[in-house]
Amino acid sequence: MPVGDLSLPEFYPIAGLRIGVTSAGIKKPGRQDLVIFELAESTQVAAVFTRNAFCAAPVRVARAHLQAAVPRYLVINTGNANAGTGQQGEADARATCAALAELTGVSEQQVLPFSTGVIGEPLPMPRLLAALPQGVAKLDATHWSEAAQGIMTTDTLPKGASVRCEIEGQTVHISGIAKGAGMIKPNMATMLGFIATDAQISQALLQQLLTEAVNASFNRITIDGDTSTNDVCLLMATGQSAEIKAEDTAALASFRDALRQVMVQLAQAIVRDGEGATKFVTIQVQGAKSETEALEAAFTIAHSPLVKTALYASDANWGRILAALGRAPGLEDLDISQVSLHLNDVLLAEQGGRAASYTEAAGAAVMQEAEITIRVHLGRGQAEETVWTCDFSHDYVSINADYRS
Amino acid sequence: MPVGDLSLPEFYPIAGLRIGVTSAGIKKPGRQDLVIFELAESTQVAAVFTRNAFCAAPVRVARAHLQAAVPRYLVINTGNANAGTGQQGEADARATCAALAELTGVSEQQVLPFSTGVIGEPLPMPRLLAALPQGVAKLDATHWSEAAQGIMTTDTLPKGASVRCEIEGQTVHISGIAKGAGMIKPNMATMLGFIATDAQISQALLQQLLTEAVNASFNRITIDGDTSTNDVCLLMATGQSAEIKAEDTAALASFRDALRQVMVQLAQAIVRDGEGATKFVTIQVQGAKSETEALEAAFTIAHSPLVKTALYASDANWGRILAALGRAPGLEDLDISQVSLHLNDVLLAEQGGRAASYTEAAGAAVMQEAEITIRVHLGRGQAEETVWTCDFSHDYVSINADYRS
Repeated sequence: MPVGDLSLPEFYPIAGLRIGVTSAGIKKPGRQDLVIFELAESTQVAAVFTRNAFCAAPVRVARAHLQAAVPRYLVINTGNANAGTGQQGEADARATCAALAELTGVSEQQVLPFSTGVIGEPLPMPRLLAALPQGVAKLDATHWSEAAQGIMTTDTLPKGASVRCEIEGQTVHISGIAKGAGMIKPNMATMLGFIATDAQISQALLQQLLTEAVNASFNRITIDGDTSTNDVCLLMATGQSAEIKAEDTAALASFRDALRQVMVQLAQAIVRDGEGATKFVTIQVQGAKSETEALEAAFTIAHSPLVKTALYASDANWGRILAALGRAPGLEDLDISQVSLHLNDVLLAEQGGRAASYTEAAGAAVMQEAEITIRVHLGRGQAEETVWTCDFSHDYVSINADYRS
Repeated sequence: MPVGDLSLPEFYPIAGLRIGVTSAGIKKPGRQDLVIFELAESTQVAAVFTRNAFCAAPVRVARAHLQAAVPRYLVINTGNANAGTGQQGEADARATCAALAELTGVSEQQVLPFSTGVIGEPLPMPRLLAALPQGVAKLDATHWSEAAQGIMTTDTLPKGASVRCEIEGQTVHISGIAKGAGMIKPNMATMLGFIATDAQISQALLQQLLTEAVNASFNRITIDGDTSTNDVCLLMATGQSAEIKAEDTAALASFRDALRQVMVQLAQAIVRDGEGATKFVTIQVQGAKSETEALEAAFTIAHSPLVKTALYASDANWGRILAALGRAPGLEDLDISQVSLHLNDVLLAEQGGRAASYTEAAGAAVMQEAEITIRVHLGRGQAEETVWTCDFSHDYVSINADYRS
């Protein structure tokens, strides 16, 4: 059960973008597991990819194709990551692109491939190729919800966000989908995120906006610290509404805010539906010397199995939080007498020990909440950072001990 | 249930060292939770402490006392870590030393305090102080087994090792005890480890030998990646048997081997009895450019929740192992086509994908073993490192969700 409301929004269609979803029976017969995006010729695309050295074949092919051409189609399969598949995996990813290019009259390099699912199994190419015509036949601007369903793996619910904003008298729309739900500690990207807008934006500015927004959203979440082999986040601008230029500060600010809203909502949705999650946890580190220091501290707390199991148990075990903080990279010289720790509005610890005002009853009350903010003040600078994570439950172990992902 | 045989050895007594164990009722009435070591005046002591910035009061006091004097007594309590206890915690640790010093006629600084257990609770000083005379009255050279019991927290079994070696016609003995079993990712030390020898060794050489041996033992294990606030490892040399000098290479090598044997056995015992452990896992990384690179890669695999849950499930999920490898610090430029992966003697992956010779049956057979070696060859250098870890089970979550540690 995800934490909080994850119902899909009413998706605004994006002019110049159509989506087709069908079944290729990749892992289970009948499951809608193949998604095709079609982009108008006016579209610019920006992307960020996983930094995992052991990256999947489609990641390598997509990166190469993006450098060679402006994309017109995306082809996404779930149920098989096409990772750890060696030379054959790369050939399969290219063959998928070639087949879709043939069907649609574009070049192979104008197709980007994406895969998610089990690592180390060969893609079932005959079934995948056979399903492509059906996917193309279904292309329609209204299929965002189906696409959000079609990219799920261990997610219990689909994830989407959609907003609009007014820019110089024109309405600009942004819609996006993403998936989780394990092997989530994105490094410059997320498991899979596809965001589109009808605004007109140059490729260079689009890439800059995407990188900024990814750093404030997908790069601030973690489920289990395991960076995936297949992380990709794509931002597509079809150019059919208002133009956003770098020099038009007001328009740029409006668009940036709207984009960040969509991407933070998607990133938080991944955490809310994290494998086995029963709590949605915001970790704020304040009073750090630098943003890097604050971020390292926040992620060290977020990854601590002892903190995560205490959250699962609704145990206000502040000793585990401070113990994790104390081993964070860069904090070897931390003066613990300057550190304070809050759970929501309750002060738990200060001056190296339990706060005089703290009562176990107050801690227990906070820990009953499904959404908790852990706020640590280091007392040694002005920088702060926030990350989002979830707890570590029996179900996380069950899901990952039972599922070959 | 620990993995493998953890029965205690016959401990060789160490001439010049006596141990007293009693109950102070710190957490539970009647539990043997207070251990006193008495060291002959001839003894030299070397120590390594946790690098956790949020270190416990007794760690800070022990470090200060060691700089000021040569220790004659150790006082160790379990059931309460005296960490996160602010100024009062430090005053309590000093008061404990002062009380024992008064009883035994030494200076306060000749007593080192150690604590393990729950973080953030004040030490129950009246009960602790009241038990000291009884602990002193029980001092005896034969109490190693009782001491191994007396320092346990979530350990299911006590841990000890004892060896002897012949050095220049004299028999030198080494005996040691240690405890786990969670919050274990020692950084320059372990949770608690006390090792003693009757050899005569200068303090400088003793510290060097301890640091070397810790790096090859306690600093090569991890249960959950959480470095404790109270880690301490002490090596005591009572000087009542053969003298070990730096320039006497043969004697030094014999002693170094024997010491390493004791410390590796203790470190591995901590992993075998790790919280919820069902598998004992050796991770070897070979063909690395440097030892740092090999060690980072090995620990990244060892800490991956997805690898650990696959080990628990006896699932030969090599994709998760290589995915963890691919996110290891320093391996951003790893050429995955050069990487090979074995489980025991079974080759699972090479050239970026599944090995042609590999069968699921062979993988499944290896994973049924309680002791498994994961061997990764990076194919880019000559350095190698080994770490030891355990799997991640439902019981780990239960233990840490139920126990306020």
